[in-house]
Amino acid sequence: MSNLFHQKSLNLLSEQLTEKGIDTSELISKIAQFQIAVPSWALGAGGTRFGRFSIGGEPRNLEEKLEDIGLLAQLTKRTDAVSLHIPWDIPQDTEAVKQKAASLGIGFDAMNSNTFQDYGQPLSYKMGSLSNADAAVRKQAVEHNLQVIEIGKSLGSKGLTVWLADGSNFPGQAHFRKALQWTTDSLKEIYSGMPSDWKLLLEYKPYEPNFYHTVIPDWGTSGLICRQLGDRAKVLVDLGHHLPNTNIEQIVATLMHQDLLAGFHFNDSKYGDDDLSTGSIKPYQLFLIFCELIGGAEEGAQAWDSISWMIDASHNTKDPLEDLIQALEAISQAYAKALLVDREKLNQCQNEGDVVAAQEVLQEAFLTDVRPLVREARIQSGGEGGPLAFYRKEKIREKLIAKRGRSSQASGL
Amino acid sequence: MSNLFHQKSLNLLSEQLTEKGIDTSELISKIAQFQIAVPSWALGAGGTRFGRFSIGGEPRNLEEKLEDIGLLAQLTKRTDAVSLHIPWDIPQDTEAVKQKAASLGIGFDAMNSNTFQDYGQPLSYKMGSLSNADAAVRKQAVEHNLQVIEIGKSLGSKGLTVWLADGSNFPGQAHFRKALQWTTDSLKEIYSGMPSDWKLLLEYKPYEPNFYHTVIPDWGTSGLICRQLGDRAKVLVDLGHHLPNTNIEQIVATLMHQDLLAGFHFNDSKYGDDDLSTGSIKPYQLFLIFCELIGGAEEGAQAWDSISWMIDASHNTKDPLEDLIQALEAISQAYAKALLVDREKLNQCQNEGDVVAAQEVLQEAFLTDVRPLVREARIQSGGEGGPLAFYRKEKIREKLIAKRGRSSQASGL
Amino acid sequence: MSNLFHQKSLNLLSEQLTEKGIDTSELISKIAQFQIAVPSWALGAGGTRFGRFSIGGEPRNLEEKLEDIGLLAQLTKRTDAVSLHIPWDIPQDTEAVKQKAASLGIGFDAMNSNTFQDYGQPLSYKMGSLSNADAAVRKQAVEHNLQVIEIGKSLGSKGLTVWLADGSNFPGQAHFRKALQWTTDSLKEIYSGMPSDWKLLLEYKPYEPNFYHTVIPDWGTSGLICRQLGDRAKVLVDLGHHLPNTNIEQIVATLMHQDLLAGFHFNDSKYGDDDLSTGSIKPYQLFLIFCELIGGAEEGAQAWDSISWMIDASHNTKDPLEDLIQALEAISQAYAKALLVDREKLNQCQNEGDVVAAQEVLQEAFLTDVRPLVREARIQSGGEGGPLAFYRKEKIREKLIAKRGRSSQASGL
Amino acid sequence: MSNLFHQKSLNLLSEQLTEKGIDTSELISKIAQFQIAVPSWALGAGGTRFGRFSIGGEPRNLEEKLEDIGLLAQLTKRTDAVSLHIPWDIPQDTEAVKQKAASLGIGFDAMNSNTFQDYGQPLSYKMGSLSNADAAVRKQAVEHNLQVIEIGKSLGSKGLTVWLADGSNFPGQAHFRKALQWTTDSLKEIYSGMPSDWKLLLEYKPYEPNFYHTVIPDWGTSGLICRQLGDRAKVLVDLGHHLPNTNIEQIVATLMHQDLLAGFHFNDSKYGDDDLSTGSIKPYQLFLIFCELIGGAEEGAQAWDSISWMIDASHNTKDPLEDLIQALEAISQAYAKALLVDREKLNQCQNEGDVVAAQEVLQEAFLTDVRPLVREARIQSGGEGGPLAFYRKEKIREKLIAKRGRSSQASGL
Repeated sequence: MSNLFHQKSLNLLSEQLTEKGIDTSELISKIAQFQIAVPSWALGAGGTRFGRFSIGGEPRNLEEKLEDIGLLAQLTKRTDAVSLHIPWDIPQDTEAVKQKAASLGIGFDAMNSNTFQDYGQPLSYKMGSLSNADAAVRKQAVEHNLQVIEIGKSLGSKGLTVWLADGSNFPGQAHFRKALQWTTDSLKEIYSGMPSDWKLLLEYKPYEPNFYHTVIPDWGTSGLICRQLGDRAKVLVDLGHHLPNTNIEQIVATLMHQDLLAGFHFNDSKYGDDDLSTGSIKPYQLFLIFCELIGGAEEGAQAWDSISWMIDASHNTKDPLEDLIQALEAISQAYAKALLVDREKLNQCQNEGDVVAAQEVLQEAFLTDVRPLVREARIQSGGEGGPLAFYRKEKIREKLIAKRGRSSQASGL
Repeated sequence: MSNLFHQKSLNLLSEQLTEKGIDTSELISKIAQFQIAVPSWALGAGGTRFGRFSIGGEPRNLEEKLEDIGLLAQLTKRTDAVSLHIPWDIPQDTEAVKQKAASLGIGFDAMNSNTFQDYGQPLSYKMGSLSNADAAVRKQAVEHNLQVIEIGKSLGSKGLTVWLADGSNFPGQAHFRKALQWTTDSLKEIYSGMPSDWKLLLEYKPYEPNFYHTVIPDWGTSGLICRQLGDRAKVLVDLGHHLPNTNIEQIVATLMHQDLLAGFHFNDSKYGDDDLSTGSIKPYQLFLIFCELIGGAEEGAQAWDSISWMIDASHNTKDPLEDLIQALEAISQAYAKALLVDREKLNQCQNEGDVVAAQEVLQEAFLTDVRPLVREARIQSGGEGGPLAFYRKEKIREKLIAKRGRSSQASGL
Repeated sequence: MSNLFHQKSLNLLSEQLTEKGIDTSELISKIAQFQIAVPSWALGAGGTRFGRFSIGGEPRNLEEKLEDIGLLAQLTKRTDAVSLHIPWDIPQDTEAVKQKAASLGIGFDAMNSNTFQDYGQPLSYKMGSLSNADAAVRKQAVEHNLQVIEIGKSLGSKGLTVWLADGSNFPGQAHFRKALQWTTDSLKEIYSGMPSDWKLLLEYKPYEPNFYHTVIPDWGTSGLICRQLGDRAKVLVDLGHHLPNTNIEQIVATLMHQDLLAGFHFNDSKYGDDDLSTGSIKPYQLFLIFCELIGGAEEGAQAWDSISWMIDASHNTKDPLEDLIQALEAISQAYAKALLVDREKLNQCQNEGDVVAAQEVLQEAFLTDVRPLVREARIQSGGEGGPLAFYRKEKIREKLIAKRGRSSQASGL
Repeated sequence: MSNLFHQKSLNLLSEQLTEKGIDTSELISKIAQFQIAVPSWALGAGGTRFGRFSIGGEPRNLEEKLEDIGLLAQLTKRTDAVSLHIPWDIPQDTEAVKQKAASLGIGFDAMNSNTFQDYGQPLSYKMGSLSNADAAVRKQAVEHNLQVIEIGKSLGSKGLTVWLADGSNFPGQAHFRKALQWTTDSLKEIYSGMPSDWKLLLEYKPYEPNFYHTVIPDWGTSGLICRQLGDRAKVLVDLGHHLPNTNIEQIVATLMHQDLLAGFHFNDSKYGDDDLSTGSIKPYQLFLIFCELIGGAEEGAQAWDSISWMIDASHNTKDPLEDLIQALEAISQAYAKALLVDREKLNQCQNEGDVVAAQEVLQEAFLTDVRPLVREARIQSGGEGGPLAFYRKEKIREKLIAKRGRSSQASGL
């Protein structure tokens, strides 16, 4: 989009919004302030159990991961933090890493532990970690999480995200109730090892890598555990972690209703945990989720600032940086559209049972082309008007390949 | 099966079980004691939104419904109670109904309220009942439930089952959090109107008849509400009320872990709430559910006697009485097989991570032909060895048609 | 939207499109020409197996149904034909009906037969119709379809739509291969009874009202049968007739690739055959479907004019006329957005494996606010700028209730 | 099970079957003759995208894979062939491999090509292989398949199995119709390179490793391509390659109806392509599939001998050899139970619309404990009565670890 059309479109939209009593500059300011963390493992090519195709120029260490996120931040102004994964991202020199991050304007979002793989630790996680029938394995897994907390503390992180792959592949393999109890007990130990200004973000997922049962399959189980841990334990929603046809926006509302929403792992999917680019498959669902988020915060269910935002996708076919630029844009659009919803009118429709008009209110917001607002927010923040075009024009991937090599592989997955 | 083969099979099975240390007569006694309630609406032909095909000879009133269940009880000895639905089953003469039921050996299981249809009440439930944005509608729905409790008290029932169809068909139609709160508040009023020896059984269902959202879509939401009501409010599991691929046996375990399982609505399904005959589609799942039930009770998670058992199917193509005979048999078989599981060995396999052997333990029980045990339990209780064959030989449906007419239609759905 | 903003928005959009080499007036003309048929049964309130809530003022006979569609045509200019259902819409006076329709500018789209219900015919369809094991039932069902063709001929229709509910509820009930063969044979008789300028539109549906198997569950089976009938038999796609997560746009492409796409039944759904308003749940999917349709037609796979368009939704909570206005708008928007896709650039991206840019091409079109184009097309055709607002301002439903009564019920479902 | 009880159970079952007119020895003979191939990649531990847990003692080369299958054959007498995967199993010395296989009584089932990974070939398959927009990549992929045919010819194989991972992750990435046409054209070249006594087995799969679309997602597309190739191209059914709730047994019947069923990849699943042990999750579905197979063959739809049988599971938590023993047992049981179905009576029920009795016929067979028959078939063939017990008693895995090492990893996935 040329600058000329950007300005014209923005002006016309602004004119229309003003007529509706919406302050465009306030809107742009909100969009500009909304920041989404990026995980360290999202900077390399992902893969499936059937293989992986390299992208080239992938970051070879933590420092290069920070550089990639710094670049994203500079171009998009939509991200200001990285989420590290231990053991993949154990810093060699903590101070150097902190300084590098600070120089790039990047903070440290929630830390991620890993008890779903064997990477040289004494006891195997093949039969589970926090839920393992063997107390020694549970102890090892707890200690790993405590170590992750320590690393996070040293970097200035304020949260621990636990995704538990524990579960079973066959009926009879696991004792459902014991596994749940052991997991709860293990998490209690981890929770009590967290500083008082940290929060624990507990994921749920119905299947994969276990295909009969997972210990924390749904928000109900995650919430049940969090309630036993304490107020700073909340439920993390990964958009891909649901059974077919799940109404995710309702889960978001139900969690906010209980002040129990930890935050998001954004991605998109058609089948399961496909980890596709956010907004690429079901953009209307993403918009409806943001409608619930804004409504829940405005109506006092749960504070907006208490929610964590992160992208978690697997870049199997796209350049990860381009994919992240697209995802940040899609999230910003969904947020901007949800901000346009006339909530007063919507409430009135709901009270009157005017289903047709309620749909019109949502459609009015969703159908609006908000790209001028998102672009303006980015420009005003000092980012690029068209970050993807800039990335390509500057041949950034080519430069990264020249520097890091064609066959470099990001550490981790 | 001839009596000769029944005896031979029973003897051989008994011999094998004895060698494993299992007391066959105790087993038979447990099977004989297990009783499953039948709802009053299951005695007529069901239908879909596309139509309904009559079966003929359907009960025309409450008394005839009791007679049908009395017949079922006599033939199968697996059912001893009816679950009534108000307003479909409002007794004209309570004492007469009680006497009729008593004479047939039939008790009154949990009562069912209906706030999902308009049947002449002043305010419409089109936009919901307990969750309606209009306080007057909520009040009416609460009062209906209180009236159902009164009727139940007069008959000797000890429970109220609430299936709430409330929800929305379109994004924007309902306010998720308000709907949930209003529902909780309404249920609090109903709960406080229940006698102290009653329990409230709260269903969940992800969709249908609303197709965008339902107010109580999953066990987590049902449990959340129950926790706010009190100890006598628990979650009812209808086997058809789940999203595709849900691990239902795990939900059963999770609910028992919290002493939160109210009971079951048994049926089977391939797609959604298909309401097919229990055990006709996924018999192994039914077995696994009973494994959890027995394990949870034996290990002290929740008392067996605190759980309610009911069939809830829709007989669209079969004679309802034949369908119920098949369902009662399938449930008894699943229960009997689950009783055969060597739980000690299973626990050992789980502790040792011996997945292959754990599967063998379950398969050993499931593959056993337990029909001699179920048949013997029925015979010892005074029922028919082959109730379905008896029903056909005696031409019972033909007699019912002769008596009640070919186009009689069961009251209700 | 005020007229002022409509004009401003249209001008700016037109300016932008012109710069991209797109002729706005041609675009508007295409949108204006696109007409979608409405079925006669969509004019009354729908329902589920759990009940039905009346809307009031529903058309009481075929003439009133025509009047409702005439009104829709007048307001929206997006529909010009009705699709009748026999026996619900058997005309009493064919000539009068034709004249009424002609006076309203309404033609007769494909006829719909009904062999899924018992409505007084000699033999029951409980165990199936075209696939029934009893040859006499199959004969009756074939003859019903032939009668529908006769009625259609008298009205000027040019097609027969067959939705076959046949199937089974339980394993063992039906003989899969025989049922398929009998259905094929029955359809051959029907096909040979069609005039040479008619087409047969054959639906598929995986489940409901049968819940174990349906005789024509997927496009593959429908296509297999059509191939045995002849060139004028093609596969009809109802958007709600798919298993969870099905990629419907790919099915559309695959059918066009074989010149085998009969047309559409538009609606939307979250779970199954929910029959919600088109575009209310998955607008991006609808857009992607139109991308395939336009691409397939432009690239010569199948001619655009050979495809039939119809809405088929169930209006359980909305005023049917308002619902149809929303659906016609949503379909027009999806079509307009798909027309904006830069297909040349998309093809180039596909050839070069530029996945990121391919997504941008689609997003560029989808994110554009095309409402000014759709509105302008409507206005230029003589319709209302805002048909929904007009409908409400004119209190049309209230007038219909006054005329037809509050408890009128549309004939049929 | 002790030998004593085996004999007693077999005698009683035989007595019962004789009374029904079933010849037990013929039954045992059929079970004994039924052989299922094992793929070379199933002998090592599988994994997910999140990691892999070694089992130890995995075969390090083709010879050791043959040895493992030879062991399976010796213990179970249910498998007599291996299915190789190229490039993972390119024989170094073809004659030596053939001799080794012959000495173990193992033949060579269908060959498997691999165009879903990059393993050093000049052009990448990242954007597809047989469907790639680049003709050079398509040519490379065709030539790979032709090379696989050559290797297969040298070993005595008679078939080529093509599982095509081609597809796309994002809307817009692929051109559906072109991808389908290119795939068809590529397969024509491969088909014409096959010897005249070979068959081509073409798989379908709805998703994974591509998560938006796959080129051959369903049986309809696979069948469409096969029809264009020739009579020796048929559709392969992998039990895990379906959308949720698919009626697989119906697909089997529909394919046999067209003489279009190539064969099976046996496994089981709860969510997607979980690749769990056959029979571990849905044993009743497996039984129903065998009912269709036997019915289709007996009634002349497609010859039994024209169908290929193979296990294709991923052994993530079990010892692969133990897993395969369990799978072979489960398949044998399902087959044996299906052989017990009283098909004449079932047909009668179907003709009379006696749904209840039809279910009883299937249940009568499914509920029968056929383990004595399967065990006897194994013993009579010279296998072990209890192969799993034998395997453990003889500490075979321990011996393999001692010989091959704890960290050996099977070549391939």
